[in-house]
Amino acid sequence: MTYLALVRHGQSQWNLENRFTGWVDVDVTDAGLAEARKSGQVLKASGIEFAECHTSVLKRAIRTLWLMLDEMDRMWLPVTRYWRLNERHYGGLTGLNKAETAEKHGADQVKLWRRSYDTPPPPMAPDSPFNMADDPRYRAAGVAVPATESLKLTLERVTPYFEAEIVPRLRTGRPLLVSAHGNSLRALVKILFDVSDDDIVQLEIPTGNPLLLEFAEGAITPKTARYLDETRAQAIPPIA
Amino acid sequence: MTYLALVRHGQSQWNLENRFTGWVDVDVTDAGLAEARKSGQVLKASGIEFAECHTSVLKRAIRTLWLMLDEMDRMWLPVTRYWRLNERHYGGLTGLNKAETAEKHGADQVKLWRRSYDTPPPPMAPDSPFNMADDPRYRAAGVAVPATESLKLTLERVTPYFEAEIVPRLRTGRPLLVSAHGNSLRALVKILFDVSDDDIVQLEIPTGNPLLLEFAEGAITPKTARYLDETRAQAIPPIA
Repeated sequence: MTYLALVRHGQSQWNLENRFTGWVDVDVTDAGLAEARKSGQVLKASGIEFAECHTSVLKRAIRTLWLMLDEMDRMWLPVTRYWRLNERHYGGLTGLNKAETAEKHGADQVKLWRRSYDTPPPPMAPDSPFNMADDPRYRAAGVAVPATESLKLTLERVTPYFEAEIVPRLRTGRPLLVSAHGNSLRALVKILFDVSDDDIVQLEIPTGNPLLLEFAEGAITPKTARYLDETRAQAIPPIA
Repeated sequence: MTYLALVRHGQSQWNLENRFTGWVDVDVTDAGLAEARKSGQVLKASGIEFAECHTSVLKRAIRTLWLMLDEMDRMWLPVTRYWRLNERHYGGLTGLNKAETAEKHGADQVKLWRRSYDTPPPPMAPDSPFNMADDPRYRAAGVAVPATESLKLTLERVTPYFEAEIVPRLRTGRPLLVSAHGNSLRALVKILFDVSDDDIVQLEIPTGNPLLLEFAEGAITPKTARYLDETRAQAIPPIA
């Protein structure tokens, strides 16, 4: 038996302002800090002894992890940051308010960009203030920063991480805690539960509520799945 | 040219209470939090782009690093935790107040334990509430938790870390930020500056003031050394 806990970062400043965020390094709000601490408390109460933690290179996920580790009294756990766990890159929509974008492009078009599996938004302009191509965290690592991503493209860059990092830990029974983003977690859930393209875009993963997956020894498909904060009921992906 | 920055964690609760701490996982005080943030500010002002960070498995060093990374806006930097960077293990003195210990054992004996290079304090009793031998951070990693350490013994377990982790980064020019403890940093300084046994025990590394070492390309002995918070003058090890 081993475990994989997936946590979506607590509310960010741009979640609050209803702006498309993507790879912009926006911090969490006070409400987000509280969600992160609550996540740490329910993880601690689960009694699961995690062996290590993974997160993205974006501070809203990293800070959420830090607060969870603090609450769990497990600040010493090994932590690895992966750019492949970053949020979906929202291309030219990055920084825009969602309501304003709907006014400008029409609600149907925005819904398509947000909820279609494979339609990416228009690419980010190279001179956008939100262009991260020269950021040292990507430049030094030789990461080709995307200009835009559909959920499908997000899944395609999450998949190598899943295969290289998650699968071996499931096989060897190392309980893993992942702090990431709405769409990188959607991608992981789609892979783990074999969710259809149509269904995955409907799945809302709540912020600050750990989704705990339990695996039989050596298995890479989950045996059970539940949200640890039971006071907030959530749809969970169907177990095959 | 490359860089190694050594930072001693900000004031801890037991620093404040003047108690021997060693491997007990005591947190930093509010003053220690402020020292850590100040360290981050002077590191940021240095303009050095660090490639990665190392710390111990003790929260006072980890939290100091977190606050520095936050101030530097470098939360995404890779961080690795090494038990070999832990503070010196104070054996049977752990948890005791330094003044009370001097009354009980005599000031000369306590000075010998604190300031001799190679005299370890009495071993910790196996049933001590401060015995960390069963702590999961050591048990899972197969670490043989010491019963006591002199500074010499601390240096002997820091040395493999220095050789395996620091030397290759100096050779390949990867600027490194290390957040650790008074005596694990003394050990690193002794190795790097070839300080004598008698002199190293006199060297006080200040809390929350980054010691920045600069190295010529490929060199493993420092070319220059300075404390980044210049408002607090400090003795620095002599450059050979």
